[in-house]
Amino acid sequence: MKDSAVLLIDCPDRKGLVARVSGLLYERGANILHADQHQDHELGLFFMRVEWAQDGFGLEGFRAVFAPMAAELGMRWKLTWGTKLPRVALFCSQYLHCMADLLHRWRSGELLCEIPVIISNHRDVERLAVFYGIPFEHVPVTAATRAQAEARQVELLARNQIELVVLARYMQILSSEFVERYPAAIINVHHSFLPAFTGARPYHAAHARGVKLIGATSHYVTEVLDDGPIIEQDVARISHRDQVEDLVARGRDLERMVLSRAVRWHLDRRILCYGNKTVVFD
Amino acid sequence: MKDSAVLLIDCPDRKGLVARVSGLLYERGANILHADQHQDHELGLFFMRVEWAQDGFGLEGFRAVFAPMAAELGMRWKLTWGTKLPRVALFCSQYLHCMADLLHRWRSGELLCEIPVIISNHRDVERLAVFYGIPFEHVPVTAATRAQAEARQVELLARNQIELVVLARYMQILSSEFVERYPAAIINVHHSFLPAFTGARPYHAAHARGVKLIGATSHYVTEVLDDGPIIEQDVARISHRDQVEDLVARGRDLERMVLSRAVRWHLDRRILCYGNKTVVFD
Amino acid sequence: MKDSAVLLIDCPDRKGLVARVSGLLYERGANILHADQHQDHELGLFFMRVEWAQDGFGLEGFRAVFAPMAAELGMRWKLTWGTKLPRVALFCSQYLHCMADLLHRWRSGELLCEIPVIISNHRDVERLAVFYGIPFEHVPVTAATRAQAEARQVELLARNQIELVVLARYMQILSSEFVERYPAAIINVHHSFLPAFTGARPYHAAHARGVKLIGATSHYVTEVLDDGPIIEQDVARISHRDQVEDLVARGRDLERMVLSRAVRWHLDRRILCYGNKTVVFD
Amino acid sequence: MKDSAVLLIDCPDRKGLVARVSGLLYERGANILHADQHQDHELGLFFMRVEWAQDGFGLEGFRAVFAPMAAELGMRWKLTWGTKLPRVALFCSQYLHCMADLLHRWRSGELLCEIPVIISNHRDVERLAVFYGIPFEHVPVTAATRAQAEARQVELLARNQIELVVLARYMQILSSEFVERYPAAIINVHHSFLPAFTGARPYHAAHARGVKLIGATSHYVTEVLDDGPIIEQDVARISHRDQVEDLVARGRDLERMVLSRAVRWHLDRRILCYGNKTVVFD
Repeated sequence: MKDSAVLLIDCPDRKGLVARVSGLLYERGANILHADQHQDHELGLFFMRVEWAQDGFGLEGFRAVFAPMAAELGMRWKLTWGTKLPRVALFCSQYLHCMADLLHRWRSGELLCEIPVIISNHRDVERLAVFYGIPFEHVPVTAATRAQAEARQVELLARNQIELVVLARYMQILSSEFVERYPAAIINVHHSFLPAFTGARPYHAAHARGVKLIGATSHYVTEVLDDGPIIEQDVARISHRDQVEDLVARGRDLERMVLSRAVRWHLDRRILCYGNKTVVFD
Repeated sequence: MKDSAVLLIDCPDRKGLVARVSGLLYERGANILHADQHQDHELGLFFMRVEWAQDGFGLEGFRAVFAPMAAELGMRWKLTWGTKLPRVALFCSQYLHCMADLLHRWRSGELLCEIPVIISNHRDVERLAVFYGIPFEHVPVTAATRAQAEARQVELLARNQIELVVLARYMQILSSEFVERYPAAIINVHHSFLPAFTGARPYHAAHARGVKLIGATSHYVTEVLDDGPIIEQDVARISHRDQVEDLVARGRDLERMVLSRAVRWHLDRRILCYGNKTVVFD
Repeated sequence: MKDSAVLLIDCPDRKGLVARVSGLLYERGANILHADQHQDHELGLFFMRVEWAQDGFGLEGFRAVFAPMAAELGMRWKLTWGTKLPRVALFCSQYLHCMADLLHRWRSGELLCEIPVIISNHRDVERLAVFYGIPFEHVPVTAATRAQAEARQVELLARNQIELVVLARYMQILSSEFVERYPAAIINVHHSFLPAFTGARPYHAAHARGVKLIGATSHYVTEVLDDGPIIEQDVARISHRDQVEDLVARGRDLERMVLSRAVRWHLDRRILCYGNKTVVFD
Repeated sequence: MKDSAVLLIDCPDRKGLVARVSGLLYERGANILHADQHQDHELGLFFMRVEWAQDGFGLEGFRAVFAPMAAELGMRWKLTWGTKLPRVALFCSQYLHCMADLLHRWRSGELLCEIPVIISNHRDVERLAVFYGIPFEHVPVTAATRAQAEARQVELLARNQIELVVLARYMQILSSEFVERYPAAIINVHHSFLPAFTGARPYHAAHARGVKLIGATSHYVTEVLDDGPIIEQDVARISHRDQVEDLVARGRDLERMVLSRAVRWHLDRRILCYGNKTVVFD
């Protein structure tokens, strides 16, 4: 985490919101590094993100003054600071392309977080976990042991004080109970097509349909499968010359990119969720 | 039409197809300008496009020799040549962005065709038609007069010897009977999203869902609405800052581009349809 | 112009800028529709754009209070309001693709401006000008008459109270004197390649070099040719199959898109220039 | 290497080339998997790539008949077959993003080759080399030891029978002598901008100039620095909000993608070089 405090706010829109927040920060001497706000005119909502230098700023004092103002204005807010890195658990199954990508980015300093645990229902990722010095937990899942496996996962997350779960091509469905424990804190990635294809072999369906673009979407996980707030999407152009295996390979590249961007933006505290959508401050 | 002959072939794949076709063309002295072939290994199909200079080439003689070979090899084929430009009818309703774009491209020589008629259920396009010197036919459509209107359209197309119908944001549904008259010869354009949205106001739905990409698709019209062989697709990146009207504007730009590309490729005889998909030779 | 006031500010960065501006607007009852700010940490600069409803807001009163504050804080600023549309002159030569695109967008309400004059050194655009009901001025330019032609252009711009000049593929070079009259108020478009090609036939050079992407750039004109602050850029993918004429056609599409976006953003008062670059608020 | 033979041909264009090559293959019973040809009309050149199943095909017999035909027609040609994987050496310096990406793709089967050696003037890559079980050679380079270092590299390449050298962010300049040993067999990647920036800190220059796109290019290395035949290019959109470090991060992602695509296409024997450009068959 950079040496900065980040305040994320959403609330009903009304006059003077920027003035009051920025006025309070100014009063208390904040050295603002980045500020951004957004209004959803249709829903009458206001969103704000302010980032300022922690150095020499009295955060607890600010918090004491800000909290009543926020209550008065009906704000939902989140203030993060300190030098403690967020704690992230990575889940995967047998496909390792997203995992290898995330771990390399983490090692090279692009993803500012701790990764205290990697959890998989397969053993394929173990060597990679060892290479990067991250504890690996093998939690097999079958129809019969699903509940038990999830209990084990929950325990591992709790024990490691996990704040964000990244599903890096984890092919098992999570229960509603699991999902509810981590609101806007589980990030998933999946392929996307125009038009959409459902069913077991979407790349085959896309190939049979002759689509000219394939895509991938990263999103927060909610109880409705693959239908949570979208964080990032990207597409690649394909042609009739691409075989199914080429589509799958392009899909892997897209998944890597959109998942790593989503994770980075989350760690940078740049994402606000509301309704079933996101504001991604840039 | 350029001064070239184009032969499009599809047939079951087998050894020697390229050798036999190119051998025959060589024998008869063809000066090949462009040749391309494609195999669909899953379906065991072969596709070929050859373009050669007409100048001094005996087309009828070639045709006489080629036809029996094609029959023997189970080929569907289409040989076009001559200097007669293909005849295209443009349909539209009240949105004119695709129309204005197609007409400008036509005037500036990008689209090599005749446009003997513009048909619309509105009068908005009339001035544009007059400007470009194209006969305009107003064919209003209501629930009660649908059959009658279509009969009028069919008559106009027949009288003008139309070979390609371009639906440049034509907002009325065509009957199966109409569609069957023009197999792989009606091109439509519509918006596309990841995920897909159905219903009356897709841009509102896409905005409410917070998608990060919007797209457009051009395709041949078949009896299943918006579900024919895809010719071209493209997308644009959007953000939470884009209002519904911004999405609509970006959508218009995408529609323009993907429709004009589809029409150009069709006129260049670069598209082969099979199953529910296309091969677009480049 | 929408019924809103827009304030654009740039100044040396310091604490409290947002607080002071937004505080003043709040005090005076502004109903803010959109606000955005940006800091250039390397140069220590601050940029802000605020848009608020004009309705019932005392603009002159605000101006009287804001001006001294701005002076104190070393702000360069621009406040635009009212319902008077900005007045734009379009320049072109013989290529009309950008012109046709801009005029259609203008007619359909995408570009909120007046276009009191179209100026060209050719006559090709005249019919289009007549169609859209815009006075056309033919100002031929030769080496011998350059100064005289420019004097005529300057007179036409002055008489029509032009605020923005759009060079829609105008192939003549403007003098420094001309350019200086319209700082950050002349928008041009040109092709761009990776790597760059100089000289008379860049598309031929790009083809000879086998580039896989071609691009276009729109920018404000400064005294250094093609080197002013960049507003927008875009690229298209090409392959070895594309002939020079295909590159030129893709280039035209890119030029259309990046020029029309630049003009729209300028008219929306979303662009701030500093140094040799732009902030384009979204 | 897939169990297929690939024939790459370029020669002066003339009638009957496809007929003769495909005729010969048909005669000898080739089961063609993929065939493609291209004509450069400006230079009067012909290019062809044919891939067919090795199984049961008499390659030596074909070679014996084809060679004289090729000589007669002035063909440069390359026929590759067998199950021996091409041997690739990876070079890098201290930036490992391309390396980590290539190695993961290699391990997961996307890049069909042997990698008998990784060579670097730094030690940063050593752990990665060990993880993937590839011999690592540390060859430091200083101004004083350049010739000696290159001699060592040449020896390592020779001893390992290297057929392709991939410069995965190798920051040292190779001598003309080195480059001449591997014509069209050294692949490099570098950043690309519109406009181009030269000098030591291109990302800083691009940021100062406010470009809206950054790019990367992979190419074969020739004696002119960064100026060999382009294989692949890609760009990413950036905005004024991106700091230099964001540009560098986006640049890394682009470099990864365009380098890995170039290597894959080379290994698939899909690239033909001529003049200073490439044909990349798809």
